[in-house]
Amino acid sequence: MITVEQAGQIIQSQTRDFGVEEVFYENSLQRVLAETLFADRDLPPFNRATVDGIALHFEDYKNGLRSFKIKATQAAGEIPVAIDARGACVELMTGAALDESVDTVIRYEDLDLSDGSATIKDVEVKRSQNIHFRGKDKKQYDKMAGAGEVISPALIGLAASIGKTRLQVKKLPRVAILSTGDEMVPPHTVPTAFQLRRSNGVTLKAVLESYRIDAEVFHLNDDSALIESVLSRCLDAYDVLLMSGGVSMGKFDYVPQVLEGLGVVQLFHKIKQRPGKPFWFGARDGRQLVFAFPGNPVSVWMCLHRYFIPWLEASLEIRSRAPEYAVLQNDIYFPHSLQFFVQVKLEMNDRGMLTALAAETNGSGDFSNLVYTDAFMELPLEKNEFKKGEVYPVWRYR
Amino acid sequence: MITVEQAGQIIQSQTRDFGVEEVFYENSLQRVLAETLFADRDLPPFNRATVDGIALHFEDYKNGLRSFKIKATQAAGEIPVAIDARGACVELMTGAALDESVDTVIRYEDLDLSDGSATIKDVEVKRSQNIHFRGKDKKQYDKMAGAGEVISPALIGLAASIGKTRLQVKKLPRVAILSTGDEMVPPHTVPTAFQLRRSNGVTLKAVLESYRIDAEVFHLNDDSALIESVLSRCLDAYDVLLMSGGVSMGKFDYVPQVLEGLGVVQLFHKIKQRPGKPFWFGARDGRQLVFAFPGNPVSVWMCLHRYFIPWLEASLEIRSRAPEYAVLQNDIYFPHSLQFFVQVKLEMNDRGMLTALAAETNGSGDFSNLVYTDAFMELPLEKNEFKKGEVYPVWRYR
Repeated sequence: MITVEQAGQIIQSQTRDFGVEEVFYENSLQRVLAETLFADRDLPPFNRATVDGIALHFEDYKNGLRSFKIKATQAAGEIPVAIDARGACVELMTGAALDESVDTVIRYEDLDLSDGSATIKDVEVKRSQNIHFRGKDKKQYDKMAGAGEVISPALIGLAASIGKTRLQVKKLPRVAILSTGDEMVPPHTVPTAFQLRRSNGVTLKAVLESYRIDAEVFHLNDDSALIESVLSRCLDAYDVLLMSGGVSMGKFDYVPQVLEGLGVVQLFHKIKQRPGKPFWFGARDGRQLVFAFPGNPVSVWMCLHRYFIPWLEASLEIRSRAPEYAVLQNDIYFPHSLQFFVQVKLEMNDRGMLTALAAETNGSGDFSNLVYTDAFMELPLEKNEFKKGEVYPVWRYR
Repeated sequence: MITVEQAGQIIQSQTRDFGVEEVFYENSLQRVLAETLFADRDLPPFNRATVDGIALHFEDYKNGLRSFKIKATQAAGEIPVAIDARGACVELMTGAALDESVDTVIRYEDLDLSDGSATIKDVEVKRSQNIHFRGKDKKQYDKMAGAGEVISPALIGLAASIGKTRLQVKKLPRVAILSTGDEMVPPHTVPTAFQLRRSNGVTLKAVLESYRIDAEVFHLNDDSALIESVLSRCLDAYDVLLMSGGVSMGKFDYVPQVLEGLGVVQLFHKIKQRPGKPFWFGARDGRQLVFAFPGNPVSVWMCLHRYFIPWLEASLEIRSRAPEYAVLQNDIYFPHSLQFFVQVKLEMNDRGMLTALAAETNGSGDFSNLVYTDAFMELPLEKNEFKKGEVYPVWRYR
């Protein structure tokens, strides 16, 4: 059996490039930017008033002038008004562009206005005040955002501001989600006493939605001919198959043998971990990938966040995120030679420290806790006892 | 001028209840649950084998028996098979329900199978091993999720598992987003040297998408008759108006007076903060609310996350989140009697401590940084100097 680290390396060696496509910027939220965005001009593009008031020539003020004749009123967006005479000023609004003949802006609060003149109150005035200078934030052709950014609302705003209304983004993989198991019935039906309702498919689909992947969901009963026929068609039509169930040692666990019969080469089966030990992973022709998770909902959830999501983010070339760590809040005893992923509730204390309270410590994997917990804490394989106050990595899932 | 804290209190005193509606669970992602979900039966609903292997009566093993005749093979979902004779066992698959006549499960790895019999290898067997007992995770009618949860993929899976295919969720407010300013031109056009492209509308709309609010975006030129006509219609058709621009002291800042003419009562105008000082907030007839932010994109972003989002989450009765804190990584000098919200990049160190590196320390508010920063750090009003190592609250925006 391989370790979690080895499994992670094998999976990361199988990243795929799905190419690039162009989308309208308003439809690009949560897609992955595949180009560099540059400033189309200086930012701000002109010397810009940051308050409402008047603009004047500082030398006039320095020479003792305090009252200025208003030559014109200039709104934002208008062609800048020049002053030509000593003692003149321009009344202007926040966002207005300054002409070269003015170099200082005084806000209304510091002025008395009457009869077309503005008189400066007894306040200190500094040269260049209340001006956001051309190019202070960015110069034309400066880089504003790079490939690998997940497109956020702020990035959409940035694209709008530089007129980049079509964006190159990474294409998404076509994903099929396939759950298995005769005992799993549709959610709208009433199960017999020995059946359960299906939940893995909709859960996986919902997680992929946050990457804008619209996955198809299938369910397969434990019939090897049916499984073979559906898997064969899915391997032709999709880039990635996410499966749940059918990978243990049971007599009706047909998935690995059917996949291998269809040319999917096993890259590993079983990892020294709990939950999720029977995870099977394979590839066909260096192209299609099959992540066949065990059927337990907690196992599916753990394998998805520990293996599939990092694979997806690497394939989409999403800028890598720093790992997160938290301080364990309870003692845990886990007497198995498996790497234990424990569900934890994260909280931040008022000193900026992230703490992790384990929801359960016996490894049984109650899936109802997934609604209230925030992450799996990855406890090291080499130890069986974990103490309050120790710090370990966490894999956040909400 | 009021403080940030006072502004927050006034806004939080204006929460609204938009009611409840029912949605299909597969369409409920990111909506807010408005009912309690209960277990429809015990979880697990039966004593469940957690491995593939055989089930037997532990007393037989205790009495020295090691070889057992396989009476039948039982898949998950099938009616449990009883054993009636001493020395019999049932071969069963992970997920199968145990009959009352068996109480211990032994996995294939610990068995030799031949001629319809299973012989236990030299391993220790404990009573009740490899069984997930009925009701261990939840009892029938136990609470599984409460009102106020933002519906996550895990919660959708939980709803599926209990057959709750229609969910009561909070209705969403109807939101209109209105930007103003003659100098703001559409993103697909080429601005003159003194114009800028519009970005606030699409940015706000994208943020609201994560709450599944589909807001309408409008732009108003600085024409008080036009502004009055559009605002009047919007006040009738929407619950909330989010505006940007037109609230400063400029001659073309018509927004506050037009709103007041339309019966929107000002609840405050201007807050001791940077950015976002000229924020105007009002209500009509205790129903419609107007958040009129200043036009600068950084001001809009800050006011949105510091005021509107907390208002929205309170109105939707989203379970409140603990505030977050981070350790400042640089010295900041801010010589104004305003509360300074500085853009920071958050990182977690390997001791679980959240650190905040300020992207800029002069308060100018370069909006291009919003793409690379993660939060605003709220620095206290009473101080002007902030030192590396000090801990302050952060308002995360990505």
